[in-house]
Amino acid sequence: MPLEIDARRFRETFETYSAIGATEDGGLHRLALTDADREARDLLVEQMEELGLDVRVDELGNTYGRREGRDPDAAPVLIGSHLDSQPYGGRYDGQLGVLTALETLRALEDEGVETDRPIELVNWTNEEGSRFEQAMLGSGVAAGAVDVDHARSLTDARGRTVEGELRRIGYDGDAPAEVTEAHAYLELHVEQGPELARSGASVGVVDGVFGLSWMEATLRGQANHAGPTAMHDRQDALVAATDAASEIHDLPNRLSADAVATVGRMDVSPNSINVIPDEVTFTVDVRSYDAAVVAAAPDAVEFEVATAAEREDVDHEFERLWSIDPLEFSPVVREAVVAGAEAAGVPYRHVVSGAGHDASYMAQVTESGMVFVPSVDGITHAESEFTEWDDCVAGAETYANATLELAME
Amino acid sequence: MPLEIDARRFRETFETYSAIGATEDGGLHRLALTDADREARDLLVEQMEELGLDVRVDELGNTYGRREGRDPDAAPVLIGSHLDSQPYGGRYDGQLGVLTALETLRALEDEGVETDRPIELVNWTNEEGSRFEQAMLGSGVAAGAVDVDHARSLTDARGRTVEGELRRIGYDGDAPAEVTEAHAYLELHVEQGPELARSGASVGVVDGVFGLSWMEATLRGQANHAGPTAMHDRQDALVAATDAASEIHDLPNRLSADAVATVGRMDVSPNSINVIPDEVTFTVDVRSYDAAVVAAAPDAVEFEVATAAEREDVDHEFERLWSIDPLEFSPVVREAVVAGAEAAGVPYRHVVSGAGHDASYMAQVTESGMVFVPSVDGITHAESEFTEWDDCVAGAETYANATLELAME
Repeated sequence: MPLEIDARRFRETFETYSAIGATEDGGLHRLALTDADREARDLLVEQMEELGLDVRVDELGNTYGRREGRDPDAAPVLIGSHLDSQPYGGRYDGQLGVLTALETLRALEDEGVETDRPIELVNWTNEEGSRFEQAMLGSGVAAGAVDVDHARSLTDARGRTVEGELRRIGYDGDAPAEVTEAHAYLELHVEQGPELARSGASVGVVDGVFGLSWMEATLRGQANHAGPTAMHDRQDALVAATDAASEIHDLPNRLSADAVATVGRMDVSPNSINVIPDEVTFTVDVRSYDAAVVAAAPDAVEFEVATAAEREDVDHEFERLWSIDPLEFSPVVREAVVAGAEAAGVPYRHVVSGAGHDASYMAQVTESGMVFVPSVDGITHAESEFTEWDDCVAGAETYANATLELAME
Repeated sequence: MPLEIDARRFRETFETYSAIGATEDGGLHRLALTDADREARDLLVEQMEELGLDVRVDELGNTYGRREGRDPDAAPVLIGSHLDSQPYGGRYDGQLGVLTALETLRALEDEGVETDRPIELVNWTNEEGSRFEQAMLGSGVAAGAVDVDHARSLTDARGRTVEGELRRIGYDGDAPAEVTEAHAYLELHVEQGPELARSGASVGVVDGVFGLSWMEATLRGQANHAGPTAMHDRQDALVAATDAASEIHDLPNRLSADAVATVGRMDVSPNSINVIPDEVTFTVDVRSYDAAVVAAAPDAVEFEVATAAEREDVDHEFERLWSIDPLEFSPVVREAVVAGAEAAGVPYRHVVSGAGHDASYMAQVTESGMVFVPSVDGITHAESEFTEWDDCVAGAETYANATLELAME
């Protein structure tokens, strides 16, 4: 008998949380550690306590609700996601994962299921990184990958610290922000890409996460009057930058079928209609599930920058900012998700995540995995982000059964 | 007997003016209607009065010094340029033209030459347009092309008006700002391009001024996460913008030998390393001496923008901001400049100006022309702007003799 969720209650809960920080255009504006985030957190704590969970808050404001298992000494199964949103973001990103975890525990309670292992629901702090500019902050500290003092001292654009804001909203907890003895971690999230929606499957079993490489290129030429300087006499930094960017946009075709390349930021100086630009800086983000592609990307991008710079006779600088290898999720958790989807009778397919998640950090300390539900048109970080409710339910059923599977191991 | 200038006095005068608003790196920072501009203006008025000129200041602060001719009713020959500079600009742009005009009148006085026509030296207000953002402001009003009240009400970045600043520095004159009955206008200026310096000629007879067309393109796609969105699923506004800019930079090759195209400003939104850009705006400046090229440029540019937009599946907008036809200077004045160069024994060549000058406005109301001297490496609007002093002298000798020629007609 598969575990069944209460689809109506799940929907009502989703609508209730979606009203906290709701935008006029159907999105969510609930940045980390704001009043809206506090309101959502308070509601979660209240609902976890109603469910009889043992609630604790750690030094980063990560909030856990523990449901005991038959063996209180067994390592717990961790389930959850994040309640913070992007500025004018969508209602599904993050929140859906937390509420699926809540519904999972409610369903276990409904059925009176006692699991072997404890299960802990978790809401991670500042996953988006849009208010405090380090994404996946709470899970990063809990995984031991980010220093707790560094995290607490981060500031937002108005200079307010994580520590001060945690205290202000009442989530500066005493529990240590560390996950050391979990049996597994499972997270449900929207895909944020169009593959699942296009395939017709309701659920994605996430095999892993793309690696990425971040770079920054600077081109320096000679500012000059746009009139009297013939084309062949110019050292136009923007000519070199746009030529390089055009080649970089074509790079994925040459690197691998899954690779993506993005020039997201470009700053031009002096940025005046009748002056030849003397300095242009732009960033490059290359991602792939193939570690060799991620490793090769910076050289390939630098080659394009250097070639364009040489052609236009401008100087260039190239900086390798950051790089992470592709991640393969735990086979144990992936099998549990497949079993969960099959138990719930939900059509699934294997996918890879183009974006990092709290699960990426958790994979450093425990067996981890994810369940994806489709993003219509792949739209995310926007108010128009949307997932069909039937798919949310299918995802939640898969998730509940996979969690049960992991908690019975 | 050609008119001879006093090269040592000319050099000393140039050094004295160059100290007013001098920058540490050998340039000039003397924005229009600032204290430094006042100091330079005061010195000019003092030196014009010493020379016995009749000084008057008009409503725009344009300052004239009149030397009478045999026939006081004859239309005067107007000679001059501007004393204001770009921010951290060079010492030659503008100032050299005013001081050449001053040296010309001094040379006439030295030799006791009485001309048939009166000659008026003029210093135009706010030619650069960098403090009050409308270039060639004083000459534009004097030519009747710019409304005097509009000009006086323009504000700088701190909200101070032209009118208020004219009053503050003591140059809010009573004379009407209009040139109605001049016989001719002659201006010496640095070329601001590399052609003359490269050719080895000391002086350029300016046949005319490039026309120009200014445009602005906006591309609108879909912002999305740089990770999970496959290349073929993107509507990346910056892909379209960089592709279009690359084609626009190649346009001059297809349009004419002299055409230049500049993308000077480009603004990217949201301008974040891991977000696909949803909006990019950029400007295009196309110039040529061929009126057909100037007229055809907007269509050609819009075609490249539309093609790139269609390929990337993004929307586009295209605005034609401003356009001016190429200008051909007066044959009478060009011939006087040639005669002046030949009288002085100076090697000259015919050139065309890529940039507009006060002479462009004067050409609307009187026979006008220009003398260019070389800009080493074509550098201008920069502290490193440089002209060999021998070329400045050759230019001044040419200019003095051309002025004499025009004043004897």
